[in-house]
Amino acid sequence: MTKHDKRPNILVVNDDGITAPGIKHLIEVAQELGRVVVVAPDGPQSGMGHAITIGKPLRFDPVDLYEGVEMYKCSGTPVDCVKLAVNKIFKGKKPDLCVSGINHGLNSSINVIYSGTMSAAVEGAIESIPSVGFSLDDFTQQADFSHCKTFVRKVCEQVLEHGLPERTLLNVNFPKGPGIKGLKICRQANAKWAEEFDERKDPYERPYYWLTGVFQNFDKGEDTDVWALDHGYASVVPVQFDLTAHHAIPILNSWNLSL
Amino acid sequence: MTKHDKRPNILVVNDDGITAPGIKHLIEVAQELGRVVVVAPDGPQSGMGHAITIGKPLRFDPVDLYEGVEMYKCSGTPVDCVKLAVNKIFKGKKPDLCVSGINHGLNSSINVIYSGTMSAAVEGAIESIPSVGFSLDDFTQQADFSHCKTFVRKVCEQVLEHGLPERTLLNVNFPKGPGIKGLKICRQANAKWAEEFDERKDPYERPYYWLTGVFQNFDKGEDTDVWALDHGYASVVPVQFDLTAHHAIPILNSWNLSL
Repeated sequence: MTKHDKRPNILVVNDDGITAPGIKHLIEVAQELGRVVVVAPDGPQSGMGHAITIGKPLRFDPVDLYEGVEMYKCSGTPVDCVKLAVNKIFKGKKPDLCVSGINHGLNSSINVIYSGTMSAAVEGAIESIPSVGFSLDDFTQQADFSHCKTFVRKVCEQVLEHGLPERTLLNVNFPKGPGIKGLKICRQANAKWAEEFDERKDPYERPYYWLTGVFQNFDKGEDTDVWALDHGYASVVPVQFDLTAHHAIPILNSWNLSL
Repeated sequence: MTKHDKRPNILVVNDDGITAPGIKHLIEVAQELGRVVVVAPDGPQSGMGHAITIGKPLRFDPVDLYEGVEMYKCSGTPVDCVKLAVNKIFKGKKPDLCVSGINHGLNSSINVIYSGTMSAAVEGAIESIPSVGFSLDDFTQQADFSHCKTFVRKVCEQVLEHGLPERTLLNVNFPKGPGIKGLKICRQANAKWAEEFDERKDPYERPYYWLTGVFQNFDKGEDTDVWALDHGYASVVPVQFDLTAHHAIPILNSWNLSL
């Protein structure tokens, strides 16, 4: 860290791993805006949610992948990456922005809770760093991120200019390209996965199970992220990490909870 | 599942693993109230948050630990356990109650987001099952859960009687015993972990890192879970899994997000 560098310091993380194409595109945008430090998992960590590594130690090493970019790979989860970056790289001088992604696959609606990409951004926000997670509706390694980059830049510029409301971060999802109609502020749609498990037998005739499922959207609202994405917009959902259901407190206070 | 059994069906899960003392106590309370099915990780899964297993298959097998209790161990995360239970055991006929824990260690305040115990309960709630996570302020294997059990039962009885507000679950934390002053409805305290990493060298002189940290409570409110626990009460926080920061939507709509 150069002490008197006036460009913003930007932490870049992801969950698809440090070699994923998505993070390369995010690094390129971040480099246009400031000094970039990348801390990312050394392999895929999709679906890790807000997991942290507590039962075993972590490896954390510098790598040299893209010219002029300070990069580290970590053996842990996306959240571990943010914790290590804050503690070992930035050492108390918080970065000005934390961006996560660009994820290969959507993190709209309920997926925010399963997503390592979004959990890394949530961890950034817990650390009081303005944070944004970015995801694209394409799971493949060949995903085309080119139509997202001007929108990623616009969102980052606005966050750097305005900051974010306290204890809030952003969840930005992009439809497949080439065109995007614009950025739309949304709420998270009420949806869930209907799980199915694909049961197979191993060579010793013992069963094992692959998680699969079908996404079910129960939400007809036109103010949701799912609606926006279905209609060609990129969705921007403000996300909070205080999970208190404040509206339920008076209801519970009416219960008889004395022994 | 007996089809015409009128006692409630209760799914018991945890994150400390199927052999943890905490789940044994929870099973004992659940057996007083209904028909019990246990699906728990085959080993410790603390700190797994809302992680799901998508990159590898799962093992899922019946075990016979406690007399008269239908039990299964799973190689995956606490959330995987709930998904497998709903899909493979209950097969669409949802249980009447999902209880998770009793966790060895508190899950108050920000810990709800890192906790496998709470994430299992969150997954129950996503599946529209009335769900409660229970945790005790004692990390040890020797933890004494005896003072918690009448309170666990009381909470479960009230949830079975009233149900829970839509898309809401409960996070119940107990102070160390012997005495508990009562159950207190609370909000989640605004607190976080100040991480430190204990850096060591392996036998080959390569560095590795253990996550450690200090809990920092920034919240002076007397309506928080941390306050209640500090004052000898068990805390009951209603938890939601819609992470939209609704209050931030008008703020974001005032930004210039057009290209």
